[in-house]
Amino acid sequence: MSTASTALPASSIPLFTTVSAFRQWRNVVRREGKSVGYVPTMGALHEGHMSLIRRSLAENDLTVASIFVNPAQFAPHEDLATYPRTLPRDLEVLEAQIYTIPGSALTRTPSAVFIPTVQEMYPSGINQDTAAQRGTFVEVKAYGDQMEGKSRPTFFRGVATVVTKLFNAIEPTNAYFGQKDIQQCLVLKRLVRDLLLSHPDPEHLHIVPTARDPVDNLALSSRNAYLSPEGRAVAPVLFQALQIAKESYLEGQPKGVCVERATQHILSVASQSTMASEIRLDYIEFNESDTLEPWAPERRRIATEPPVILSGALWVGKTRLIDNLILGNIEDIHI
Amino acid sequence: MSTASTALPASSIPLFTTVSAFRQWRNVVRREGKSVGYVPTMGALHEGHMSLIRRSLAENDLTVASIFVNPAQFAPHEDLATYPRTLPRDLEVLEAQIYTIPGSALTRTPSAVFIPTVQEMYPSGINQDTAAQRGTFVEVKAYGDQMEGKSRPTFFRGVATVVTKLFNAIEPTNAYFGQKDIQQCLVLKRLVRDLLLSHPDPEHLHIVPTARDPVDNLALSSRNAYLSPEGRAVAPVLFQALQIAKESYLEGQPKGVCVERATQHILSVASQSTMASEIRLDYIEFNESDTLEPWAPERRRIATEPPVILSGALWVGKTRLIDNLILGNIEDIHI
Repeated sequence: MSTASTALPASSIPLFTTVSAFRQWRNVVRREGKSVGYVPTMGALHEGHMSLIRRSLAENDLTVASIFVNPAQFAPHEDLATYPRTLPRDLEVLEAQIYTIPGSALTRTPSAVFIPTVQEMYPSGINQDTAAQRGTFVEVKAYGDQMEGKSRPTFFRGVATVVTKLFNAIEPTNAYFGQKDIQQCLVLKRLVRDLLLSHPDPEHLHIVPTARDPVDNLALSSRNAYLSPEGRAVAPVLFQALQIAKESYLEGQPKGVCVERATQHILSVASQSTMASEIRLDYIEFNESDTLEPWAPERRRIATEPPVILSGALWVGKTRLIDNLILGNIEDIHI
Repeated sequence: MSTASTALPASSIPLFTTVSAFRQWRNVVRREGKSVGYVPTMGALHEGHMSLIRRSLAENDLTVASIFVNPAQFAPHEDLATYPRTLPRDLEVLEAQIYTIPGSALTRTPSAVFIPTVQEMYPSGINQDTAAQRGTFVEVKAYGDQMEGKSRPTFFRGVATVVTKLFNAIEPTNAYFGQKDIQQCLVLKRLVRDLLLSHPDPEHLHIVPTARDPVDNLALSSRNAYLSPEGRAVAPVLFQALQIAKESYLEGQPKGVCVERATQHILSVASQSTMASEIRLDYIEFNESDTLEPWAPERRRIATEPPVILSGALWVGKTRLIDNLILGNIEDIHI
């Protein structure tokens, strides 16, 4: 039932390029009563994606990944054209994921990869210029205005739109997203709840902890491939700055002090780099995890206060890095 | 499995007020392999709604209606508060619909009515002021700007949002909408296609011809209940004006002449009414059925040209009436 076209690399995992072909597969496994875990990706797969795949393999009968670089989430000036596209390697990496069910000799590997065209995902077409767009778009108002949304005003609209479509096409039992994109995770949880989606329902949209470089804790990202050696050396400063802000927060310092200490650390490290002039902090923010509004310190006096999200974005040359820490327990986030 | 609360009228049809209760029912009938026809309504049911119900009864194993007055499609100055709410009578009317399967003694009646609360449909809440809204909204760009969209700028956003939710909750095999709201039908067909919905898929979203008063052809509408006797007497002028515009179109007259003749008819009839000063034409428009852009006469020279939609809106006192004619074959509309 694979619809692998000749343009696709060889793969031992069935590849689907159209919604209708995927749906035939999906209907068969539905009748078999099998659960389907889903990991949406833009390709350029790294260990962060693999942590999502492994979690899905462990928790579902079948696992589906999608690879689709979504034009609607890139602004006209952003890196759509240069975003890394490494499909042959991505498929090899997926094929190599083998999960052994504990206490048995049974194994699971990814069951299907959905690789749609832009036309398949955007039947009305898609224009990078939002003013010229036609067709259906999904927006999560007020939850996408802060943090990443402030720097990338149409980003979450593009994400919400494509993920609504992907969820409708895949109809997953469970879906897995990386904590690195925490605001995306929370916006999508809100979307699933608001649109009354059942595939997945809000409780089955899972946030998986950020995968990091084991030595210097840099959050893994497909965009790290853009970094020069000098840029890669300085990149962990964002995580370090967030840690400093977290320590200040736990000391009970006010927000201004927390952010100031973190910013000073970045300035200090940057000043010692040959790239000093190209390192620019976009933001460090504290936000409420249930509303994404700015941290309201008075809420912390309540015993059942929701966690706070501490997040940041940093330009290193032409590469924009993001990272975040959750101040509290990720299971206590209810949005 | 009915979750009828004590506040609901008695009904022989199972009533569901929550998505989760409805889903239990839906999952049972899915396992039984039964098709589900769906008629979304805002209540105040009339013969137009019944024509949709009868079509659904004829074409599906089971028929579900919903009754929900959707706040998001009313602008703050519009008639949300006064929109007719006639639930006990609506349920009686639905109970009375009995379809006999041709050539048999078997009958079908509506199987379920979904009557959600505003909170159930808008988990993030809903504010009439769009600037203050939070949560997820669906927009069909460029298809909702003309005709009704020009006069009611946030109307189709409200419709697209609630229907996306209702389709996700009901998961119908077939859905039925009245041609009176032709732009709504076409915007929703575009939405279903763009969002890759399978419940229903675009081919199973059906447009049912407008039900009319058998004597004077007034399009049936819940809002007709607002009309005074004088207003009701003059209301058929909109249909007459559209007929005049259609005849001019078929004669080959240019758009300006068609609209002018229709407008003159309305002015002439209005001038003889005691309500003359309260009768105001909002618009008469010709639009392409596949793009909803203004009628492009040069396309009519093509043998396979799509139909043209001739539509209008008229204020009679505080009541806004709409109507439309399709110039061509409704089956040739592909959006």
